[in-house]
Amino acid sequence: MFETAIGVLDWLGVIAFTITGALVASRKQMDVVGFAVLGTVTGIGGGTLRDLLLGSPVFWVREPAYLIVCAIISVLVFFVAHITRSRYRYLLWADAVGLSLFAVTGAEKAAHAEAGVTVAVAMGVITATFGGIVRDLLGGESPVILRREIYASAALAGAVIFATLMAIGAPRELAVGTGFAIGLVIRAVALHYGWSLPRYRPRPDVPCNPPK
Amino acid sequence: MFETAIGVLDWLGVIAFTITGALVASRKQMDVVGFAVLGTVTGIGGGTLRDLLLGSPVFWVREPAYLIVCAIISVLVFFVAHITRSRYRYLLWADAVGLSLFAVTGAEKAAHAEAGVTVAVAMGVITATFGGIVRDLLGGESPVILRREIYASAALAGAVIFATLMAIGAPRELAVGTGFAIGLVIRAVALHYGWSLPRYRPRPDVPCNPPK
Amino acid sequence: MFETAIGVLDWLGVIAFTITGALVASRKQMDVVGFAVLGTVTGIGGGTLRDLLLGSPVFWVREPAYLIVCAIISVLVFFVAHITRSRYRYLLWADAVGLSLFAVTGAEKAAHAEAGVTVAVAMGVITATFGGIVRDLLGGESPVILRREIYASAALAGAVIFATLMAIGAPRELAVGTGFAIGLVIRAVALHYGWSLPRYRPRPDVPCNPPK
Repeated sequence: MFETAIGVLDWLGVIAFTITGALVASRKQMDVVGFAVLGTVTGIGGGTLRDLLLGSPVFWVREPAYLIVCAIISVLVFFVAHITRSRYRYLLWADAVGLSLFAVTGAEKAAHAEAGVTVAVAMGVITATFGGIVRDLLGGESPVILRREIYASAALAGAVIFATLMAIGAPRELAVGTGFAIGLVIRAVALHYGWSLPRYRPRPDVPCNPPK
Repeated sequence: MFETAIGVLDWLGVIAFTITGALVASRKQMDVVGFAVLGTVTGIGGGTLRDLLLGSPVFWVREPAYLIVCAIISVLVFFVAHITRSRYRYLLWADAVGLSLFAVTGAEKAAHAEAGVTVAVAMGVITATFGGIVRDLLGGESPVILRREIYASAALAGAVIFATLMAIGAPRELAVGTGFAIGLVIRAVALHYGWSLPRYRPRPDVPCNPPK
Repeated sequence: MFETAIGVLDWLGVIAFTITGALVASRKQMDVVGFAVLGTVTGIGGGTLRDLLLGSPVFWVREPAYLIVCAIISVLVFFVAHITRSRYRYLLWADAVGLSLFAVTGAEKAAHAEAGVTVAVAMGVITATFGGIVRDLLGGESPVILRREIYASAALAGAVIFATLMAIGAPRELAVGTGFAIGLVIRAVALHYGWSLPRYRPRPDVPCNPPK
């Protein structure tokens, strides 16, 4: 039964990232096939790299339903995206949901493949961020990962919390749910309030970002 | 005997993409090693990703002749590319040939590896487009995949036609030849007449691309 | 005992590239997690692609100590990089050391996996250049591989010398050391004197780079 629950979260992550890919396609005024390609690549990108690195069969090669769902959602976005005025805000929020979902499902899949804690956390961060990286590179957008607000850190926090709870013997459902919730809250708060971690400043005596 | 025919088409696709990679190197005024690197990566990129995703051994690791031929062709381009005036047009046409060849040979290799129809079509599109994506990213060029004329759609059409013909029991030679020909014609017509599919328009009442 | 020596060189290459990734993070004024992500990806990127292409298990999935060391070094750079004034020069020199180390250790690992001479040389060049390519793409920097001074050629020279010495039966230690030393000297001289190979010139009668 839990296999279903984690599977559901993984599907939701794929869908959320597919929407962000299709929204970038809309910003670039692509045609409908461009939407399907960019949406699908974004949706399945993170999990694909995770499976390659783990030496597992790539998930969508075994379950092509992922490809079909990604394509359908991308086409839907093609027809309805104009309804909203602020597509970039939707993109950031769908990205936040996908990021926090994949941080835990990526780590969970690695743990399932007998990887240790360090590798599980790394796989969580990789799964969570790679789809968005590919999306922004292919779409010619400024990479979300370079934005000032907390981003990869939210994925890292979610994956670390999941891995820690698993290591101390918490039930898997609790570990997944808590990791996801905390990752999402961190990213959401960062987005809403523009929070960021202290950034590198090259020369303290001549600060690049002087306090206002 | 057919193994040879499909192998010949795959070789032609590698050669066509190698030429496009070397032509981008000429646009960037690289040295001869830069030509060899960019040409080779473009030529083998699509098939490499296809093999990794399918879990097959990477084709050029087993047949290093691919590497040697790619390097030789790149060096040839280094010495002869100045003869023509319009290198970008040659680049687009070689890219069109490689795109339509790899759309069917990529799908064929996936079908050969027991993948279903959906995965075979996806592998066709991936094999056809990935080499050009890497070429444009490494060469700092605007990605061909973002150009306005029909591009990924041509690869998709070729792969779908191949997969459909195979599914209804047509001979493999016919399926490969028809898929290739239709993919190439679509891309060629799109290039020549500047055809594109309807593109996403954010707000119909305030169109971004007003009709002239 | 030699397994240790080649392992040491591989570790040094990972550390050198991690430093370059963290230095790009400092140029982009990322936060400390951004340093860790970009440093780690740069440090392990080349070896990861090499292992995927060879069909070997990815090295850091089996030895997570690589991830931990990369993260620690990146954090150290976060705190000490401001001490120096010319971070870009350090970046180029650390990149040169990593480039020449990975050119031979990458080729050596391929040879160890029973690959032929051509594939071994290709793996040397791929391992040496891929980490830097990913670093520059993710960091939004102009790719080092497009710079005018000899770059990929130095990796190619190191890998060819290693493979040639191995092919004629030289001791492995000698082949590794000689390949590394020559690759590093070539890149260092090119950096110091701005040496480059003859570059492609589109029309000799109307040269783009007229002699001064």
